[in-house]
Amino acid sequence: MMFTKYFPVLDWGRRYNRDAATNDLIAAVIVTIMLIPQSLAYALLAGLPAQMGIYASIVPIILYAIFGTSRALAVGPVAVVSLMTAAAIGEIAVQGSADYIVAAITLAFMSGVILLVLGLFRLGFLANFLSHPVIAGFITATGIIIAASQLKHILGIDASGHNLWELVHSLIEHLPETNPVTLVLGVLATAFLFWVRKGLKPMLVKAGVRPRLADILTKVGPVAAVVATTVVTWSLGLVDKGVKVVGDVPQGLPPLTAPSFSPELWSSLLGPAILISVIGFVESISVAQTLAAKKRQRIDPNQELIGLGAANIGAAFTGGYPVTGGFARSVVNFDAGAATPAAGAYTAVGLALAALLLTPLIFFLPKATLAATIIVAVLSLVDFSILKKTWNYSKADFIAVLATILITLGFGVELGVTAGVVLSIVIHLFKTSRPHMAIVGQVPDTEHFRNVLRHDVTTQDNILTLRVDESLYFANARFLEDSVYDIVASMPKLEHVILMCPAVNDIDMSALESLEAINERLVALGVKLHMSEVKGPVMDRLKRSDFLEELSGKIFLSQHQAICELAPTYPCPQEDAQNG
Amino acid sequence: MMFTKYFPVLDWGRRYNRDAATNDLIAAVIVTIMLIPQSLAYALLAGLPAQMGIYASIVPIILYAIFGTSRALAVGPVAVVSLMTAAAIGEIAVQGSADYIVAAITLAFMSGVILLVLGLFRLGFLANFLSHPVIAGFITATGIIIAASQLKHILGIDASGHNLWELVHSLIEHLPETNPVTLVLGVLATAFLFWVRKGLKPMLVKAGVRPRLADILTKVGPVAAVVATTVVTWSLGLVDKGVKVVGDVPQGLPPLTAPSFSPELWSSLLGPAILISVIGFVESISVAQTLAAKKRQRIDPNQELIGLGAANIGAAFTGGYPVTGGFARSVVNFDAGAATPAAGAYTAVGLALAALLLTPLIFFLPKATLAATIIVAVLSLVDFSILKKTWNYSKADFIAVLATILITLGFGVELGVTAGVVLSIVIHLFKTSRPHMAIVGQVPDTEHFRNVLRHDVTTQDNILTLRVDESLYFANARFLEDSVYDIVASMPKLEHVILMCPAVNDIDMSALESLEAINERLVALGVKLHMSEVKGPVMDRLKRSDFLEELSGKIFLSQHQAICELAPTYPCPQEDAQNG
Repeated sequence: MMFTKYFPVLDWGRRYNRDAATNDLIAAVIVTIMLIPQSLAYALLAGLPAQMGIYASIVPIILYAIFGTSRALAVGPVAVVSLMTAAAIGEIAVQGSADYIVAAITLAFMSGVILLVLGLFRLGFLANFLSHPVIAGFITATGIIIAASQLKHILGIDASGHNLWELVHSLIEHLPETNPVTLVLGVLATAFLFWVRKGLKPMLVKAGVRPRLADILTKVGPVAAVVATTVVTWSLGLVDKGVKVVGDVPQGLPPLTAPSFSPELWSSLLGPAILISVIGFVESISVAQTLAAKKRQRIDPNQELIGLGAANIGAAFTGGYPVTGGFARSVVNFDAGAATPAAGAYTAVGLALAALLLTPLIFFLPKATLAATIIVAVLSLVDFSILKKTWNYSKADFIAVLATILITLGFGVELGVTAGVVLSIVIHLFKTSRPHMAIVGQVPDTEHFRNVLRHDVTTQDNILTLRVDESLYFANARFLEDSVYDIVASMPKLEHVILMCPAVNDIDMSALESLEAINERLVALGVKLHMSEVKGPVMDRLKRSDFLEELSGKIFLSQHQAICELAPTYPCPQEDAQNG
Repeated sequence: MMFTKYFPVLDWGRRYNRDAATNDLIAAVIVTIMLIPQSLAYALLAGLPAQMGIYASIVPIILYAIFGTSRALAVGPVAVVSLMTAAAIGEIAVQGSADYIVAAITLAFMSGVILLVLGLFRLGFLANFLSHPVIAGFITATGIIIAASQLKHILGIDASGHNLWELVHSLIEHLPETNPVTLVLGVLATAFLFWVRKGLKPMLVKAGVRPRLADILTKVGPVAAVVATTVVTWSLGLVDKGVKVVGDVPQGLPPLTAPSFSPELWSSLLGPAILISVIGFVESISVAQTLAAKKRQRIDPNQELIGLGAANIGAAFTGGYPVTGGFARSVVNFDAGAATPAAGAYTAVGLALAALLLTPLIFFLPKATLAATIIVAVLSLVDFSILKKTWNYSKADFIAVLATILITLGFGVELGVTAGVVLSIVIHLFKTSRPHMAIVGQVPDTEHFRNVLRHDVTTQDNILTLRVDESLYFANARFLEDSVYDIVASMPKLEHVILMCPAVNDIDMSALESLEAINERLVALGVKLHMSEVKGPVMDRLKRSDFLEELSGKIFLSQHQAICELAPTYPCPQEDAQNG
């Protein structure tokens, strides 16, 4: 049992049959064709040699197939994580240097260890601190930065920067150096890829191709651009005209590599490694869950952490860099009919063959083509509708999204996502620190009690009933005290305060101390404190403290019982009155 | 109106009369006598010249009297803030140097500005992020560190350190250098002060002194120790025997000083200044509220921030260091009958006279006496009962307290309080990230629905009712999704899922998107999603999104109505069924 839990492969592996194998093989061929240009492009985005993108797609896929729980997830380099890798190691090593590569490998190893530890200690919930709007804003802003960072390859110039401001500044500065041939090639490739994405499928469907096949052809379209521009560049000798190409890519299987264990490197990569792990995990699990739900399958978030952790550690030892589950490739894998994680293993074999045999063919592949692939892919991530959606629904969420987008664009990915997380936590605490409270009265002739401001209800001069619509904890304990003292100070005839608690799901130690203080101060004023409709688990906990002995009043099962007993003029059936 | 709000003095000042003035004057004399040794001692604790303690008690008291809202709060140097000051500036300047003093003045200015800004922007709620148990643990650990840091004066040796480990290590190292005369003096002073605190009041009461007067005499007891040890040290020439004394204290009113505006200094003091402001504010406001409640007076937390901010800025310009409302002095002020903040102003005059006239008299005051004053004062802050209390009541709070105590003792005050704050927020998010959920069924022959695990209830095979006992927000949105998918996967006959929401006080954008995802995935499985007992404010917000149009099922006012409509076999009065 235990064994199967940590090795999901033992579960589906036993039931593996020929049908499933056929489906998996077909899916693997399609995904492999799609992944070759994508892997090269993302390595370029991360500032790494192109082959590292392919290496990062081989062993990690196999390890995920063994440890992961998603049937369709395809693991490898993705755009956002590649950019975050570039941002993290760009600060501590020069692009192209051996140190840069070692740092990328070390980053993959650290991310793997972090993911593994989170998974083994079942800390997957930590990823929940990233709210949906913050993720949406972050992905949008990252998409813009990635697209901007690739413009230099389309223009054939040098430019750099970790935020939009730096990038635009650097692009404008180098604009006069634009290489016209590269520009023509880049623009044509970009236009073609946009057309493949938007126009190809309708055309194919109109021509009688089945929609699912049309979908798949659309996804492998980029390979046509790769082949065409490579052939053009080689045959017309465009390298002499200044077109930059991928160049010499070593032929062979992924090499054995090892991370550095320098304490200095680790301490400077720790922050980025945590962010990359969490962002990668969140992206990956939302893809996995979307696909699993379509087939009523289960994703175990903590086991996913272990799967992704193993994949990243695998990447570190086989010349790769940080990886995660990619959206586009997983969807293609799923649509192509992948039945089990074995499809991933077959994809790995396909990519290994590509690394072994195809690398000499991509010498003349222009970097502009890869940049076009990236630009077209990431612009589909850019979606500002989250701003409108949150503006309508919740201003608090809107502020968090807007801040995430602006800070990511203006100060880079690491500060952007950190600010988003911190801000959404602060906003949540702020909201719950000023809970909705209502003074309630009785709806005449019923046992219902409602807000005096919204309903025509009966109240007594000597009784204050306050309904608190939030769990009581440290962030709102003082607010509760302030509110009670304020209201009490304005009611000179007061004899009883009743806290009505049907929506109080928890009372922590701070709130308990506030209740004790309220009780004590009310006693000094000759006012009794009561509580009504306290939930079972909250009551269980209160019984473990001295509060119930100190309480000057009583705990009532219902608000109706409280009023029956405390308001002498109120007509109440005798059997209803009951002490808590 | 606006004017009175920011200058509370205009409110009480108009009604000031002779009776109030008499009470205030008496209180001021008592507090002044108590404050002289205390102010000197706390300056010593902060590593500053003794007179700065007195300076920090003059102008700040007056400014607080103008801007503050508490009638009895006495502002000045306090133990915890003095230690935090020493910890903050000890890292950037050498004790005794001019830089050290400038840093202390700058720290007071920065704290003042931070408090003022928090007050003007009404951000007082930020102080709520410090939970009660974390504060209790922090104060206890700080008390221990302070007491340990003063042992060197009792022993007459040199020792230093910012955490308990360093202090104990340093004390043991220098133990052989103990000065016997100082030790005798220090132990006697400490024993006397303990006796004053514990034994003097019962003795006086027995001798017929009124309890209130006995209380006050107990509080001014330390002056006797100051006078006695000073006279002994002077008359026996103990300075020659190695007893360290306060020495030359400049005679005169507080000097005009100015903070430094060096960006380097500001950036290294920013973190400590924030911590000092928040800790000082929390200490001060809890004292102010305790005293105000006894007389049904109101404390406005945001105006308190302004009052304390003004006091700290005043301290910076008159040779002081960070100040806040002190517990002991405020209680004495209150017990002695202070009627208005004018009592504070009279105290300031008393201290100014002391600075002008008495400073030559304290040349021979032994540092050991001041250390004894501090030790006796702070040991009353040490209270480990919070550990037992939280252990019984809530393990989550217990972990936060224990971590705060251990990290404060082991790594110093700044890391300790930061860890406490972060940990209590993380624990809160963790708790709410896995909310209590219950599958509920109908209690036979009633309209009540209860947990199937706790009660004998009726359920239907095709209906799942899930009650969520927590607001839905980003930290638990994914947990909700996971839980629903898990349960749905185990119920093959399912047609309807009803989310019962009486305890859901908020649904944020992340949770809304999770609900949309749940709805979409259930539709794909042929299952309808309904909601029941959605609260008014939550419903208002849902109406601003597209969710209600997308929802495959209905919103029911009550769970009873939901079952009536969805369970065909259930006997339901026709008039009860109603669509939301």
